[in-house]
Amino acid sequence: MDAVMDVEMDGVREILEKARAAGRSALTAPEGRRICQAYGIATPGEGLATSAGEAARIAAEIGLPVVLKIVSPDILHKTDAGGVLVGLRTEGEVRDGYERVVANARAHDAAARIDGVQVQQLVGGGHEVIVGAVTDPTFGKIVAFGLGGVLVEVLKDVTFRLAPVSGDDALAMLDDIRAADVLRGARGAEPANREALAGLIERVGRLVADHPEITEVDLNPVFASAAGAVAADVRIIVGEPAPEPERPSREEILRQMTRIFRPRSVAVIGASAETGKIGNSVMRNLINGGFQGQIFPINPKASEIMGLPAYRSVADVPYDVDVAVFAIPAKFVAPALEEVGRKGAAGAIMIPSGFAETGNAEGQREIVEIARRHGVRVLGPNIYGYYYTPANLCATFCTPYDVKGGVALTSQSGGIGMAILGFSRTTRMGVSAIVGVGNKADVDEDDLLTFFEQDDHTRAVAMHLEDLKDGRGFVEAARRVVREKPVIVLKAGRTAMGARAAGSHTGALAGDDKVYDDILKQAGVVRAPGLNDMLEYARTLPLLPAPKGENVVIITGAGGSGVLLSDACVDAGLTLMDIPPDLDEAFRAHIPPFGAAGNPIDITGGEPPTTYENTVRLGLADERIHALVLGYWHTIVTPPMVFAELIARVVAEERDKGNVKPVVASLAGDTEVEEACEYLFEHGVVAYPYTTEKPVAVLGAKYRWARAAGLLR
Amino acid sequence: MDAVMDVEMDGVREILEKARAAGRSALTAPEGRRICQAYGIATPGEGLATSAGEAARIAAEIGLPVVLKIVSPDILHKTDAGGVLVGLRTEGEVRDGYERVVANARAHDAAARIDGVQVQQLVGGGHEVIVGAVTDPTFGKIVAFGLGGVLVEVLKDVTFRLAPVSGDDALAMLDDIRAADVLRGARGAEPANREALAGLIERVGRLVADHPEITEVDLNPVFASAAGAVAADVRIIVGEPAPEPERPSREEILRQMTRIFRPRSVAVIGASAETGKIGNSVMRNLINGGFQGQIFPINPKASEIMGLPAYRSVADVPYDVDVAVFAIPAKFVAPALEEVGRKGAAGAIMIPSGFAETGNAEGQREIVEIARRHGVRVLGPNIYGYYYTPANLCATFCTPYDVKGGVALTSQSGGIGMAILGFSRTTRMGVSAIVGVGNKADVDEDDLLTFFEQDDHTRAVAMHLEDLKDGRGFVEAARRVVREKPVIVLKAGRTAMGARAAGSHTGALAGDDKVYDDILKQAGVVRAPGLNDMLEYARTLPLLPAPKGENVVIITGAGGSGVLLSDACVDAGLTLMDIPPDLDEAFRAHIPPFGAAGNPIDITGGEPPTTYENTVRLGLADERIHALVLGYWHTIVTPPMVFAELIARVVAEERDKGNVKPVVASLAGDTEVEEACEYLFEHGVVAYPYTTEKPVAVLGAKYRWARAAGLLR
Repeated sequence: MDAVMDVEMDGVREILEKARAAGRSALTAPEGRRICQAYGIATPGEGLATSAGEAARIAAEIGLPVVLKIVSPDILHKTDAGGVLVGLRTEGEVRDGYERVVANARAHDAAARIDGVQVQQLVGGGHEVIVGAVTDPTFGKIVAFGLGGVLVEVLKDVTFRLAPVSGDDALAMLDDIRAADVLRGARGAEPANREALAGLIERVGRLVADHPEITEVDLNPVFASAAGAVAADVRIIVGEPAPEPERPSREEILRQMTRIFRPRSVAVIGASAETGKIGNSVMRNLINGGFQGQIFPINPKASEIMGLPAYRSVADVPYDVDVAVFAIPAKFVAPALEEVGRKGAAGAIMIPSGFAETGNAEGQREIVEIARRHGVRVLGPNIYGYYYTPANLCATFCTPYDVKGGVALTSQSGGIGMAILGFSRTTRMGVSAIVGVGNKADVDEDDLLTFFEQDDHTRAVAMHLEDLKDGRGFVEAARRVVREKPVIVLKAGRTAMGARAAGSHTGALAGDDKVYDDILKQAGVVRAPGLNDMLEYARTLPLLPAPKGENVVIITGAGGSGVLLSDACVDAGLTLMDIPPDLDEAFRAHIPPFGAAGNPIDITGGEPPTTYENTVRLGLADERIHALVLGYWHTIVTPPMVFAELIARVVAEERDKGNVKPVVASLAGDTEVEEACEYLFEHGVVAYPYTTEKPVAVLGAKYRWARAAGLLR
Repeated sequence: MDAVMDVEMDGVREILEKARAAGRSALTAPEGRRICQAYGIATPGEGLATSAGEAARIAAEIGLPVVLKIVSPDILHKTDAGGVLVGLRTEGEVRDGYERVVANARAHDAAARIDGVQVQQLVGGGHEVIVGAVTDPTFGKIVAFGLGGVLVEVLKDVTFRLAPVSGDDALAMLDDIRAADVLRGARGAEPANREALAGLIERVGRLVADHPEITEVDLNPVFASAAGAVAADVRIIVGEPAPEPERPSREEILRQMTRIFRPRSVAVIGASAETGKIGNSVMRNLINGGFQGQIFPINPKASEIMGLPAYRSVADVPYDVDVAVFAIPAKFVAPALEEVGRKGAAGAIMIPSGFAETGNAEGQREIVEIARRHGVRVLGPNIYGYYYTPANLCATFCTPYDVKGGVALTSQSGGIGMAILGFSRTTRMGVSAIVGVGNKADVDEDDLLTFFEQDDHTRAVAMHLEDLKDGRGFVEAARRVVREKPVIVLKAGRTAMGARAAGSHTGALAGDDKVYDDILKQAGVVRAPGLNDMLEYARTLPLLPAPKGENVVIITGAGGSGVLLSDACVDAGLTLMDIPPDLDEAFRAHIPPFGAAGNPIDITGGEPPTTYENTVRLGLADERIHALVLGYWHTIVTPPMVFAELIARVVAEERDKGNVKPVVASLAGDTEVEEACEYLFEHGVVAYPYTTEKPVAVLGAKYRWARAAGLLR
């Protein structure tokens, strides 16, 4: 996109300042057009003619056909006065038209003052689309695009992006609406000039990004034809720019977060020897969890707790303190936090409730103010604490968790945190961290992403969230992380009803979900539709290797599963490979003559282990295939554990040869298939019993990430 | 709808016969209009005028405005000749117009023969919609409705019903498209006359139902305005009517099915003493399953098998035989089936594969022919067999299943059948029957529905299917069953990819999924989106009592779960009750001041069992509430089993007082919540750990059935 020339930029600033000085929030149509011109956004050409010759010249310059309109302060209803002519196609017609319009006007009212005739380019044809920008409370300036009329207004067929929008993103927006084929010329319509339309979207994004005081832009309709894209109507609203949120530097975040996740010492404010107290649970979990750093119980009434010397106050601790876990009622937090701050701690883990979530916003502001003053980062308040398994750190009032692995999980709600813990334990999910963020008074998802980004123990991040305090900060952090590791997000409050509940829970304003959906996608985030999906994605994405291409092949012993697995592939946005003849031939050599090659490859039900082995090995070895979906059918000939052991072995053998591909499996059979699935999971093959949807859904999630990370271009 | 008068019906028949006699498949426009007239479908009025006065008279009669068109065999391009005038609004204009058109034509070509001027009503305005009918290979005549243009052609926003369509169904079609609000007058548009439009749809349904030889009708566009609905263009295609499938009477089906499901005796053709043989597994399962009727092993080489006297042939059995289970290779089936037929058996359970699914369509036709001749019903071939627990009947080669309960499951695929068995066993799902239907050479879903309809042991039916041999037969049977019991359907091959796989598996033609979706809904069936959903619906629908109204209330200990449960309610089509002030007040009395009443009711996390008890009891007792969704958060104050036992008790106590409502729960917590969920399930409360989606999805399924059964009107 061409840069806006300085002189034109000055003109734009002048218009905006003039409007604001005059206390106007809406710009006039000519002001809007002038701004559009400065940004290279095409609007219909126009000019005022005071003679037939001048009208013809203007028409030639702005392009035919044109509309002529009488300009007279005395003629209110121009059409009734014969003062409007539409669709004049030649200079001659314009010349004649000028005379006719003026004559009609005079005939209508001989006394009327006539200032001339407005010559306006007649736009139309092509497709009516809407391009706009609004200021979103979570994400700031965002750009919207949709097709005009019913599609946007009734079907809400619209897509959003953060402003500014790159050229690629603008082009992607054209494909992101459901009616995208219309612009490509469906039903014999004229295809739109995609570059011109994307360019217009990009320019609108630039415009609102350049000028914080422009709060809203509405180009509606824009006529998008093969020739170009012209904004027939321009509406621009100005207002008070929203303040930029403060963001510490990445280095600063990282320094504090590293001290929080890998502390040399942890103080427990309100440590207790009494079972049932939170301060007791935290102490027990720190010790039983195997934390190797120093633990300082803080309790004014004890000299020793669980075999460790206790201190009256954190100020009395004769060592450095990295982290202070608060296990005291809300009303005692502020003075204790002052001491923690003076002690130079990096993090205050604020378990207590009784702050903003119960209406005590003032108390919450107070602790944030104290923490800021001392450079302490606050996690919470109103949380269960956090786990970081590489440091054997269980700073929570729940129970220890020790299955180390590659996924870091965070949750805004304590209940969801408990579900994460139970699910982890029952599935033996390998975890690097589980973190409660609660009210997010200070530390939020972008701080955590910044830590997990460089944490070698973390290979995927899964986050439950109800709102984002700083949408742009989140997107920025997520985009960086996604290049290397999947980021899974469960955004609660998706629906109107859900958003209402979010309102009553955290007081957070849930934005329109479509905005979240599009912008999370723009950030490369894998969005989970529900809690269980988030948990399964978290469990499986670190296990599955990244695919190197889009060719998915289904190999199944049960034809019925093959059909359902195919359905699931379409639902998950996966591409069933069109198998070339030589490969088809190669598969056929391994399966019975009445089996079906193609894709799914139906090896049929009664086959021995060798048939599974030969076909799966071929699928792993052939470079044109990028991922395998297996359908197993429990038979006496190939029992579940025989299948599991053989698949685990073949996958390992081929992996050792460099054939590293994601393999997922659906097992249909009697209860022995459950044990077989566990075995497969332990050996890096994602396998589920009694469902054809789940294995394919997680493979789809892995693909969504791989595409966002640019691995499949 | 008015009846079509006999004389008009004769006219329609005459047109259709004439077209078919002439070998034409497409009717002419005048023929189409005449048929529309006979059926009360409005088309634009028109007539031929040979004088200005006549033109004005015709215009007055058909209604203004009109279009005039010169009628001349010598003028090809009417518009170029000035032979067309559009939008004449008064009789005077029509009169003048007639003269002008004729004058223009003469000026254009003085020698042209002029037959007159066609006067045609100008339709337009309102909404362009499409009403059509096609002949679907599965369902026969179906009626389609959608909005014209992009919405139908690009977004496929169209809905289908079986023809004929009732008035209520036709009205429902108007609401079933995504853009339904457009017809209601969204965006300030003129609302369509719903009765007129629904009437037109109903008439099209009647037309194609009355005349089997009409294979296709296209009314496109129909202009639907506030005044009425007029079909501007009519296209009717005639062809060879499809033969009506043979359907035995309900009584006949029931007589045979009852003998099959409650046999006094079962013969096993190919019974074997050798472990690993199918004929051995079947024998073992019949005996170990506890079947109390007679069992006759048939094996020419044995005199006794598993302690029972064996027979060389079924002909040698000195008792009546109700059912013969075939456990012999395909090539030996035909002669054995002859003997079974002569023996007067009701059912042949055809386990062997090697028929149509391997390309041996001829072999399959042969056994069907033999069975028909003898009045034997064939289940399969290519199946695992069937279970009917009320008779302790396990006529399969799998393993016995003995958890008796209310759901009957069927599957077209053996692999899916095995998944049903494993899932049933692991969840201890109470089952009345599990039936493999395989190739469906004879017995199909409508036969089974007819049996399950009157089977007191069956309270819900769940069916996995890839195709329907007789779509209308299925709909008819399902509609009857649904009045009393839910029918759950997993239709595989939903997607294009899926349909392709279905093609390769059974050779069945999978219809367009939208047709299936709409017509299954019309039949009142609860469609499951995937295999695991079908299994969970099957497990839970018989447990949940039917709701008596749409008011759903969420009571949750975890605010975070409340938000996700709300999202799930919207996804499941449930209505969160708008809680009236007195009820809100009543709930508030039981929860902490910082908890949130409204809906979800957030009782907050740290509450004791009494808070759960009081709020849940209130929810069960208040008649305005119809269903409860519970969100539990694992705490020390209310541990999982305490919650489970208290909820089970409160639900039982309130049920005894007559407060019978569906209750579902989502449990968030450490692994003890799994045991709590099992306990709740055993006590009639549907509960799942680590998911907020599943409990709400099954409640949504129950509601879908309750609406279809007319319980919520």
